[in-house]
Order: sequence, then C-alpha cells, then structure tokens
Amino acid sequence: MKILVINSGSSSIKFKLFDMSDESVICKGLIEQIGQANSGVKITNVKTGANVERSMPITNHGFGIDMMNFLLFEVGSLQSLADIAAVGHRVVQGADVFKSAVLVDADVLRKIEALIPLAPLHNLASISGIRECQRVSPQIPNVAVFDTVFHQSMPPEAYMYALPWELYENHKIRRYGAHGTSHEYVSKQAAKLLGKDENELNAISLHIGSGASVCAIKGGKCVDTSMGLTPLEGLMMGTRSGDIDPAIVPFLLEYTRYTPAEIDAIMNKKSGLMAIAGTNDMRDIHQKVSEGDTKASLALAMHVRRAKKYIGAYHAIIGQIDCIIFTAGIGENDAKWRAAVCEGLEIFGIEIDKAKNEQNSHENRDISKDDSKIKILVIPTDEELAIAQKTKEAIEK
Amino acid sequence: MKILVINSGSSSIKFKLFDMSDESVICKGLIEQIGQANSGVKITNVKTGANVERSMPITNHGFGIDMMNFLLFEVGSLQSLADIAAVGHRVVQGADVFKSAVLVDADVLRKIEALIPLAPLHNLASISGIRECQRVSPQIPNVAVFDTVFHQSMPPEAYMYALPWELYENHKIRRYGAHGTSHEYVSKQAAKLLGKDENELNAISLHIGSGASVCAIKGGKCVDTSMGLTPLEGLMMGTRSGDIDPAIVPFLLEYTRYTPAEIDAIMNKKSGLMAIAGTNDMRDIHQKVSEGDTKASLALAMHVRRAKKYIGAYHAIIGQIDCIIFTAGIGENDAKWRAAVCEGLEIFGIEIDKAKNEQNSHENRDISKDDSKIKILVIPTDEELAIAQKTKEAIEK
Repeated sequence: MKILVINSGSSSIKFKLFDMSDESVICKGLIEQIGQANSGVKITNVKTGANVERSMPITNHGFGIDMMNFLLFEVGSLQSLADIAAVGHRVVQGADVFKSAVLVDADVLRKIEALIPLAPLHNLASISGIRECQRVSPQIPNVAVFDTVFHQSMPPEAYMYALPWELYENHKIRRYGAHGTSHEYVSKQAAKLLGKDENELNAISLHIGSGASVCAIKGGKCVDTSMGLTPLEGLMMGTRSGDIDPAIVPFLLEYTRYTPAEIDAIMNKKSGLMAIAGTNDMRDIHQKVSEGDTKASLALAMHVRRAKKYIGAYHAIIGQIDCIIFTAGIGENDAKWRAAVCEGLEIFGIEIDKAKNEQNSHENRDISKDDSKIKILVIPTDEELAIAQKTKEAIEK
Repeated sequence: MKILVINSGSSSIKFKLFDMSDESVICKGLIEQIGQANSGVKITNVKTGANVERSMPITNHGFGIDMMNFLLFEVGSLQSLADIAAVGHRVVQGADVFKSAVLVDADVLRKIEALIPLAPLHNLASISGIRECQRVSPQIPNVAVFDTVFHQSMPPEAYMYALPWELYENHKIRRYGAHGTSHEYVSKQAAKLLGKDENELNAISLHIGSGASVCAIKGGKCVDTSMGLTPLEGLMMGTRSGDIDPAIVPFLLEYTRYTPAEIDAIMNKKSGLMAIAGTNDMRDIHQKVSEGDTKASLALAMHVRRAKKYIGAYHAIIGQIDCIIFTAGIGENDAKWRAAVCEGLEIFGIEIDKAKNEQNSHENRDISKDDSKIKILVIPTDEELAIAQKTKEAIEK
C-alpha cells in the first residue's frame, strides 16, 4: 500500500510517498516559493536516486499539486495515481473539534475552514492542499492529521487561560499546542527503547527545531504543552519570542507606531534567536560563541534557560518521570545544546553521559549515564511517517 | 527615631509610622477612594487604640497628605512634624536606573518620572505622594524605596525577552519584576529561621496575595522572578491573567472590538481568579469548591498548578535549594492552598507536615516534615517595616 503525505505551507508543499508494507520512503519532494518569482520543484526517487530539480513559475497550490503528481511519474515512483491508497495531510489546527485523524469529507473541510482564525496561514494552506488533491484525483481518499490531537488529553487546568470565560466560549481561546504528531511519535519510540508499555510512560519531550515546544506526558498521554492558542507561546525559538509579559503588546501599541499585525509579525518572525544573536541557525550561534560574541552567548543562554525551566515545571506537574526526550533539528543533532540544558539538572537525577551525548547517530539512543535515575533519550522524529501511519489507520477503520 | 512609610496608589494612600528604636508601629492609616464620592480616612494609634474613621471628600493626593498629617496629631501619635526623621515611599518601578533605595532630590524625581511609561498608574501616584510631602514639610527627607531593586541582580538571560534588540535599547523593555522588597525581606527572615548566612541562602519565595509573584534566590540574591516588564506576567492572580500566549492580544484586536487599552484592562482587572471563579477572594473560592462549584475548582486548580510549575522551573535554575517560602495574604494564611501546591512535590524532597501547616500562627515558622530535604517556611511579610528599615539606612548613609 502506498500512502502520500503532504505538508502544505503558505508558500510551499512538502511531500513524501511511503510504501506501507515496510514503511519505507519511495520518493520525497518539495515545491517552494509558490507564487514567487523564484519558485521551483525538487523531487528524489529514494529507491533509484533519480531526481529532478527545476526553477519554474509555480503560481499557486493547484499548479503545485499538478507538478507533484507529474513528477512522481517522471522520477519513476508511480505507474498510476490509483496506486496511491490515500493522501495524508498535515493540518496544524484541529482545536478541540478533532480528537483523532479523520477521513476528509465536505463536513470535515467546513470544520477545518471554521478554525482558520486560530491558525490563519496554516489552515488555509492545508485546505488548499486537500482541495487540489480532491480536484486531481477525486477517487483517492484524503485524511487530515492534526498537530493538536495529541494535546487534546490535557486537563482543563492546563489548557484554560485565566481570561474572561466568554473569550473561551465565544472565541475558543485556550491552549491547543502544536507538534503533537511529533511528541506522540517520539514518546512511543521512547517507550519502546526503554522496554515500557507506552501507556505507562512518564516523560518530558522537547521538540527543538526552528519551532520548538515541550510536552509533559503522563501515562502516555499529553498533560501539558508549551505552545498555546498559537505556536508563539513557550520556548524561545528561531524567530519566535515564546513567553513574554503579555502587557508588552499594549505597551508597544501605546508607545510605538507598530500596528497589531506588525507586532504579531515581530513576535513571530523577528524575535527569538534571530533578534538576540542576529541569526536563527544554532550552528552559527555556536560558532559566534566560540569567537567571543556576547550577544550570541546571551541568545544561547536564554534559549537553554527556557528549556531548563520547562523541564523543571513539567517535572513538578508529572511527578516521577522515566525520561526526557530530545528531538527535531537541534534536539537530535546539537550535543552542545543538549549538554547545556542538562547541566545542573543532576539535582533531579538527570545525568548526561558526555561521550554518549557527543556520538553522532541517527538512531534512537540513550545518552544518559548508566545510573542516571531519569534517562535522557535522543529520538529522531519522523512526522511524515507518523502521518502516513495515522492515514493508514484512518482508511482501514 | 520615627519614620513614616507611605504607599501611594492611584486612588489611595496607605501609611504607617514606625518607632525605629524597637521597630514598633506607632500608628497606621488608610485614605481611600481619593477623588471618588465615597472617599474617606481611617487611622489608628496602635499604642493607645485611639482611632478615627470618617467619610469625607478627599479630592486629591495633596488633600490626602494634609489629612494624614492632621490625623497623626489628632490620634496623639505625633507632637510635631519635626519628630519624623524621614518619609519612606514605596515606588513600584525603578527599572534598571535605581540599584538601591535613594534620598529623593530633583534629579531622582525626574528619573522616577521618566519611568512612568513602564508603570503609569503606580509611578504617577508615588511621585504625587513624594511631591505633597515635600510641599507640607520641605525639611523632612524623602526616601524612594523601589519594588524592583532586589531583582536587579538577575542575569541578562533571566531579564531579557527574546524580542528585537531595539525594543530593549529604545523602550527599555525587559523583565524588572515587582514585590522585591517583600521577597528580600522574607528571604532574610528565612535565613535567620534556618540559622543560615543570608548570603548563602538558596530559596524559592512565593508572595501570594491578590498580586502574586515568585522569586528564585541563589546565594541570597534574586536570579529570576515571575513578574516581568509589568506586574501582569507570571502567576495567575486575583484579577490578573499572568502568563498567556502573547499572540492572544493581536488575536483579540483582530477578531473582537476591544481596543488595546481595553485588552490591557481585561488582562489586569477582569482576569485571574475573578474571571474563572467569579470571585477573587480565595476564601470564597474554597467555600464554593466545598459546595461543588466546578468553576471554582477549576480556578483553584489553575492557580495552584501555575505556582507548582514555577517552583519546578526555579528549582531547575537554582539547583540545590534550602527552602521554599510562602508569604502574603494567601501564602501566609491559606493552609489548604499551601497543601495543594506542595502535593506531588515530594519528588523534589519538599514534604509538608499536615499538622504544622494547619496550625494558625502569625510567626515565622517551618511547616515541613522534620526530615523534609527542602524546608517549607511560612514568613509573614512586612513591606512597610522593610521600607522603614531601608529609609533609615538611606538617611544614615
């Protein structure tokens, strides 16, 4: 069975074709800068190495989906569109409407549309990806896999903000979180690695890439997460501020000429590591730190401190924990960052093994000392595979 | 030596007259609803019990200060204004300009004025209190005691927000914290109670009243605190939301008709316990919880959870800690709340003694089990006394 996974962004379409008999990747590709002068496509047949990379005007998502289908044939990954059993779509915001991945029908599409205010760019892009797939191959089922579903198990004291009740009732303002598919995937892998029943795992999962979030997992279920109504809240990120005094927003509206939309853009696109260090690439930051750049050192110290604080906070909420899990770009690959986060956490029984931490690997692994009370795991995330698995489940139900 | 302590709010003046020979209170009073139809004064000579309580039109702070001086004579607390050695004024926002309490001169007043944007209502009120004292008794020195001074020892990674650098440089946007005088006072008392050098104390101090903040103390110095640029950030409070996704503010501006000022007022005055439980009085909340009110239960669970998370977060930052300290209205008097916060923190070696916790007392006390690794202390705060002490220091320097 072949399943195609699509992650539509506002100006890009990422896709991966899986052979679900062994969960191997057949083909992967990217269409980027959609609607821009410098748009283009890249695709690789992973099995044969055949690939195409071309600059060309991709004016919209519809054209993009057509090109994707054409190129899947072009690189020899598909003989017929009918070979695709289903398409799994990443949808960022399912709010409290969707409690699992679902087969898309007109009603589901309407509900995803109704959630656009809660994630304007993201949900619009997902909808357009789904619609274009329906247009090209109406016989292939589409499945919506939501980034928020794993977090739906949070108790109200975790997801409610201390704001007037009517903002929750009338505007659906609450914590939804994001990266749920990733947190769920790595926590299940972690349970496997520790030889534990996944429903008995207590863990803190840190998904640290350009976007970053922490998830508190108790009995295999999410009980808290750092992203909120939107993916802005929580950790310091590549270009996102994470937690700040919310009164700063009215302050800026009063004392500067920024509009609300500009402030939103500042907090989401011009803050984080970028604002402090002048770059949002953690490798550049380490380089600058080694050259004595004080702003880069500050950015790193802030980034690490925020992660450390969330580990402490979630430890207090969960109680006894089996492991902390590092995943995504920085979490998987940045040994220096991991070491910095774990420094001082020996007080909780979190003890990193220097040699194991510094060993390069793409495998699930334990980098804690043998006698560390709480294990420290590095688990490469694979959101596309997780989406493919959930898509398969949805069409087989 | 007699020292008068004044806490000017936007519509109130609280005052206390101390005899510094034994730090006893001679007299205390309150002028409230200044500028309102229902304004009035209350004053008590603590030594004799003589008191005056009267509804009368107090049109402004100047009139209020005059009435205060008149009533100090009226209840027999003063024979001459010249008996007052100095007046200590609470000033909420000293930003990074003031590193200690200072004798007020024209330059100091200008600097406090320049900080008005960072705490509009609070600093304006303090300035008017100081000016009116200068008017009535120009020969008596005034000392400004800042709520922010104790937090000035925070490292940059604690006080910087991950926002564009120019917002820090041009608009002074950073974490300043508040309740510093209280956190410092109770941490010194805690060191005394534990028989420790106050410069070696590692502690987490929770000032929990209608306003609420947490302070991380390492080596006797503040290394982090939950309030930020303004007293909105951090814990859930009586009517303040504390931490929320900052993207909620632009969201409300986009999807509701609220103005920035209205949103600021919602977050500061219509949120917190009040928004969820319909009351901001913790005693009412416990009562409602006992009657099965689910919203009151939710409000309490949210309030407690937030405190618990900050304890975990600051424990991760500080490392080994000697004690956690509860102070202010709820922290000092609400045994149920303290028990709820400590529940589950046994994992850190924080073990509350049920009987000690439930014993009513106004003394500094240890309510942890004898073998609790980390001590749990209840320390009644006394911000006025702390201000009087700092005022005495400042005029004797």
